[in-house]
Amino acid sequence: MSTTRVTIKDVAARAGVSKGAVSLAFNHKPGLSDATRERIFGAARELGWAPHPTARSLAGARVDVVGLAVCRPARLLGLEPFYMEFVSGVESVLIEHSCALLLRLVRSAEEEVGLQESWWRARQVGGAILVDFRADDPRVGVVRRLGLPVVAVGHPSLTGGLTSVWTDDAGAVTEAVRYLAGLGHRRIARVGGVAALTALRTAAFGAAARALGPAGARQLATDWSGEAGARATRSLLTGAAQDRPTAIVYDNDVMAVAGLAVAAELGLAVPADVSVLAWDDSELCRITYPTLSAMSHDVHGFGADAARTLFGVITGEGSGSHPVPAPVLTPRGSTGPPGA
Amino acid sequence: MSTTRVTIKDVAARAGVSKGAVSLAFNHKPGLSDATRERIFGAARELGWAPHPTARSLAGARVDVVGLAVCRPARLLGLEPFYMEFVSGVESVLIEHSCALLLRLVRSAEEEVGLQESWWRARQVGGAILVDFRADDPRVGVVRRLGLPVVAVGHPSLTGGLTSVWTDDAGAVTEAVRYLAGLGHRRIARVGGVAALTALRTAAFGAAARALGPAGARQLATDWSGEAGARATRSLLTGAAQDRPTAIVYDNDVMAVAGLAVAAELGLAVPADVSVLAWDDSELCRITYPTLSAMSHDVHGFGADAARTLFGVITGEGSGSHPVPAPVLTPRGSTGPPGA
Repeated sequence: MSTTRVTIKDVAARAGVSKGAVSLAFNHKPGLSDATRERIFGAARELGWAPHPTARSLAGARVDVVGLAVCRPARLLGLEPFYMEFVSGVESVLIEHSCALLLRLVRSAEEEVGLQESWWRARQVGGAILVDFRADDPRVGVVRRLGLPVVAVGHPSLTGGLTSVWTDDAGAVTEAVRYLAGLGHRRIARVGGVAALTALRTAAFGAAARALGPAGARQLATDWSGEAGARATRSLLTGAAQDRPTAIVYDNDVMAVAGLAVAAELGLAVPADVSVLAWDDSELCRITYPTLSAMSHDVHGFGADAARTLFGVITGEGSGSHPVPAPVLTPRGSTGPPGA
Repeated sequence: MSTTRVTIKDVAARAGVSKGAVSLAFNHKPGLSDATRERIFGAARELGWAPHPTARSLAGARVDVVGLAVCRPARLLGLEPFYMEFVSGVESVLIEHSCALLLRLVRSAEEEVGLQESWWRARQVGGAILVDFRADDPRVGVVRRLGLPVVAVGHPSLTGGLTSVWTDDAGAVTEAVRYLAGLGHRRIARVGGVAALTALRTAAFGAAARALGPAGARQLATDWSGEAGARATRSLLTGAAQDRPTAIVYDNDVMAVAGLAVAAELGLAVPADVSVLAWDDSELCRITYPTLSAMSHDVHGFGADAARTLFGVITGEGSGSHPVPAPVLTPRGSTGPPGA
């Protein structure tokens, strides 16, 4: 069934307008009357013509869709502020480019590899944002082979030379431990996220806390949910008093909010009995009582940086490794000297 | 430039495989060796062929992308748990259909109208989820004219006969007021969301609260952010004691968390001095101290219902108006009799 291809020229001829007018109509630009637009869409419908998304990208170097696959249970995505803030930052840049985000949950890194390949082969996306890098990430090789424009959100030690944006999490963990040690804490615990995705933080915390003595290095992994954070906090705070940490660092802020509540429920004062240090510092940290001290990370800005860097890769104007400002300490009401 | 159209047959011939094999490769199905897949992709590249996303949808009645436009500042999207939970519910159904969500922020309802039309005309989506309905919504007419398969998330009084999923917010507001009145409260205030999008709740609260006497009907509109919720709470609780509400209903749970903190900051006990009732009941309500009583709404399930209903519309198996279970009262620690 070799057919003659219907082109934009045929649509323009049938509608009695220029090719430019057809393009205006399909790109939803102003300058056409409703009647003309209707006639153009009618002609396209009759001829079975639609602009190929890629044809547009190739012609105008304009990308109108970028992809993001997230390997995480659907339920958790809704509970953890990080992704929504990150996505909101990405969207704040996409909107300037009239670009949409193609968002898909996947069950494994392998599924993501297949998906990114299909999206790119079928020209459904003009580029992709890759997140949640692990050691020996299978995406690195595939992306190179495909020539898919991407920005990798992850530390250069994991992203294999892809253009990346990343935060110095290890340095920030070390700063957090030093801050608490400076207040006089010697038993500092960490309630971390998913182990495989926070290995750099775990190593840095271990190193910094070991410097304080053997009691300082307790770390528990969670799934980042508030409920897991509450369970971990309860297990840390209900041990023998001489083992109980006097300060806890959390890998996000939902878990820190849960930690505050567990302390209150156990009758422990914050920060006199236990200091609580959150991570990321979304709005939540400013609406609790006491307000939460946090390692502040502009997650919205991080998402925006990732999107901007991706557009640089797509237009050939950018590449390399882009560290964004590391999380910085914002002391508020939930941290203080032990026993104060 | 009338060219002979390259078809899947040409790609198959060049790669020395069947059309079915080309289809397997591009749909990323198993059953081909890596070498064969590479040869197929190579042939497609040389001939400049890619499967048209729509060709697939039309042929297999398979939709692999659905659209969602949200008219909200990027920053707010990241702060309010509702959307992320809703999206996570949508994704939980899309993943079963190997379908992605095309997410775009827009600045106005008019921009959304144009976007939905472009997406549909260019066959970038097989259907759309429409949210945030207002009175005289401009999307209703356009969707009908286009024949775009949609599910409208909103009350039938606003969605103009489009297939819809909705919750009985008015009934739930009335239940909330009756519950607090039953505890003995006579001065009940509401900290609401954006006025134009919560008109049904505002009317229902006004009617229910007026029944309690003139003092009962105080309502403040916000942008749904925790900070706006804190400001509204402060303004309600710092008035003259005889005017101060003894119970506050919030339109989401972030604002209720903020309300708890403002009460603590003002030295008011919850619930003895003021009862706090949250809405939606995300995980946040269970990780505060006291835990937050809430009108519980399964937002994740609501998103899943919306996606399922959309697939029904796309396959022609479903239409009509689908009420989902209304929010129900979950009493926890933050509500009680006034002065108790």
